[in-house]
Amino acid sequence: METLDSAIAEHLRCPRTRHRRVEDDYAPPYPAWSARAATSVEQVVMGYFGVQSRGPQMQGRACAALMKIAAGFALADGPGHHDLAHYVDAEGFDNMIAIAYWDDPAAHARWSATPQVDAWWQADERLHEGLGYFREIVSPRVEHYETLFNTPDRFEGVGVVMGGLSAPLQEHAYWGSMRDRIPLSQTDAMSASGARRVIAGAPAPGQRVQVAGHENLAVIRSGQEWTETTGQERKLYLEEMEPVLREGMEFLRDQGLAIGCYSNRYMNHLDASGAPLQKSFGLSYWHSLADMERWAESHPTHVAIFGGFMRYVQALDFQLQLRVYHEVSVLKADEQSYEYVNCHPGTGLLNGLAA
Amino acid sequence: METLDSAIAEHLRCPRTRHRRVEDDYAPPYPAWSARAATSVEQVVMGYFGVQSRGPQMQGRACAALMKIAAGFALADGPGHHDLAHYVDAEGFDNMIAIAYWDDPAAHARWSATPQVDAWWQADERLHEGLGYFREIVSPRVEHYETLFNTPDRFEGVGVVMGGLSAPLQEHAYWGSMRDRIPLSQTDAMSASGARRVIAGAPAPGQRVQVAGHENLAVIRSGQEWTETTGQERKLYLEEMEPVLREGMEFLRDQGLAIGCYSNRYMNHLDASGAPLQKSFGLSYWHSLADMERWAESHPTHVAIFGGFMRYVQALDFQLQLRVYHEVSVLKADEQSYEYVNCHPGTGLLNGLAA
Repeated sequence: METLDSAIAEHLRCPRTRHRRVEDDYAPPYPAWSARAATSVEQVVMGYFGVQSRGPQMQGRACAALMKIAAGFALADGPGHHDLAHYVDAEGFDNMIAIAYWDDPAAHARWSATPQVDAWWQADERLHEGLGYFREIVSPRVEHYETLFNTPDRFEGVGVVMGGLSAPLQEHAYWGSMRDRIPLSQTDAMSASGARRVIAGAPAPGQRVQVAGHENLAVIRSGQEWTETTGQERKLYLEEMEPVLREGMEFLRDQGLAIGCYSNRYMNHLDASGAPLQKSFGLSYWHSLADMERWAESHPTHVAIFGGFMRYVQALDFQLQLRVYHEVSVLKADEQSYEYVNCHPGTGLLNGLAA
Repeated sequence: METLDSAIAEHLRCPRTRHRRVEDDYAPPYPAWSARAATSVEQVVMGYFGVQSRGPQMQGRACAALMKIAAGFALADGPGHHDLAHYVDAEGFDNMIAIAYWDDPAAHARWSATPQVDAWWQADERLHEGLGYFREIVSPRVEHYETLFNTPDRFEGVGVVMGGLSAPLQEHAYWGSMRDRIPLSQTDAMSASGARRVIAGAPAPGQRVQVAGHENLAVIRSGQEWTETTGQERKLYLEEMEPVLREGMEFLRDQGLAIGCYSNRYMNHLDASGAPLQKSFGLSYWHSLADMERWAESHPTHVAIFGGFMRYVQALDFQLQLRVYHEVSVLKADEQSYEYVNCHPGTGLLNGLAA
């Protein structure tokens, strides 16, 4: 048997002042992997570039805007990887997002300052096209995030730009393993402090609004791909697991604020032509990692998701074609930048900030 | 709102070298309580006094033996509280157990040395009555166990001899709270070491066998009383929750060894005349608290119990008449004494020790 690896890359290990939740001889019941970046990578950028529209008559214009954004990624210093995705929010707006990853914040900064990119973003026209736009840019240092994959043969999200793979991990398949995989957890409780606040504009349509995040705000992108599922597994996923997942995602979207979830988007991937893929993910922002943990561990909506997943893997005797992964970051205030242009006040980090 | 109490009694708190799993401002979503003993209590004794028989023709004799044991509790230095309970084990034997609690190991030692008690236990006749007998005596120091009750108005088990009650607790309703309630967890991982071993006799019928436990062996008694449930709640408990609980209990009984569970008994309370009460509990011995945690958190059989309980409390909007409680100890080797007289080799701590 291959020796288990720690989710924490060797060069990020340090003398602990806080303990993991499991003992040193713990062995998980099934394998999982983390992505590994080169040791030269110190910080990554996860950029959510959104286009918001309402109604089918605006879809074409919104799509064109998304394509324009994605085309910009091909400029110098553009991201190493991006995805396109769509969801309809609680207010009935279509939101299309290009999610782009850089393994170097300086490259992202140069790209963002490129005249074609910056002038377009700053232009007054953005407020008057009948569309909303947003940029949610989170830039965790490598100590501040973790990734998890149930298969070692294909990456998603930030894993693609990290490029490397761990050995099978020790820290997974137990409650608390998410925290234990984040390097900073070796020495820090990662408690949230401060509050989100509007630092420019007002959270309303027709405005250009900037929101500042607070210390140790947490974000998770948690996804699944069912492209390769067939027969019983496909039926199980689509008819039993997905509806329960959707219910949990809708709970977070509609009632998340009360339990510390600022925003949740349950999104479907699109291909480059805008057609849906058999891949989806939840993207949510939280007051703290602890709030995310409490929801995951004990809220009926996630207990149902977890129970459903356990029944699913049992029914398939742990032989899944379903791919699942996530990436979780706990962000310092300086690792966050949120800007909304002509978006409705329930959008992303604006949610709950309007009077 | 009443201030939350720690599960760890004030005089047992000490400077931590290990962290709790929750932050200082954590507030559980519903209340629970721990029992409190007088500060003079340093160690308790939980004695499981069993009678094993096979078939209806032996029931009368077994009952009489149990009554004889229970009558002995009235002698000087007898326990402050006891229960009677019954279950049929995997081999089809009836097992009746008198569970007795002392708040003073010296009193237990004097009681146990009482000639009526000791001579009966030591007598050769015990090997030749067609019955098996066992004594599983665990004596945790107050740093080594915790209790949890969902109601503040009635105790069970060791809580009865402890006699006092905490304020509503902070450390519950999250995974890891069991560990966080044990005072020793402030400074110790409570890792298991060593192995059970037979120190006298051989694990077979017709033998008087002694088993030594190892360091940090864990034991849980986890119970429920449905006497006061009515209507929908009663139906939910009996038809939905209990069958799932039973399935988990049977898994531990039959397949527990592979995951670190030495023995599990899912027992029903009896009244003093031997009639069943509407109360039951699981009593299980584990290699370690960590093994117990892993089963509880991720094994499909317990995920089903937990999911079922969550649906149950939701359906009742958290207004339960069901009473639930548990007591969990992590035992040093010197806090354990196991003796089996003419018992089959699957009994209690003997389970898995025969060649």
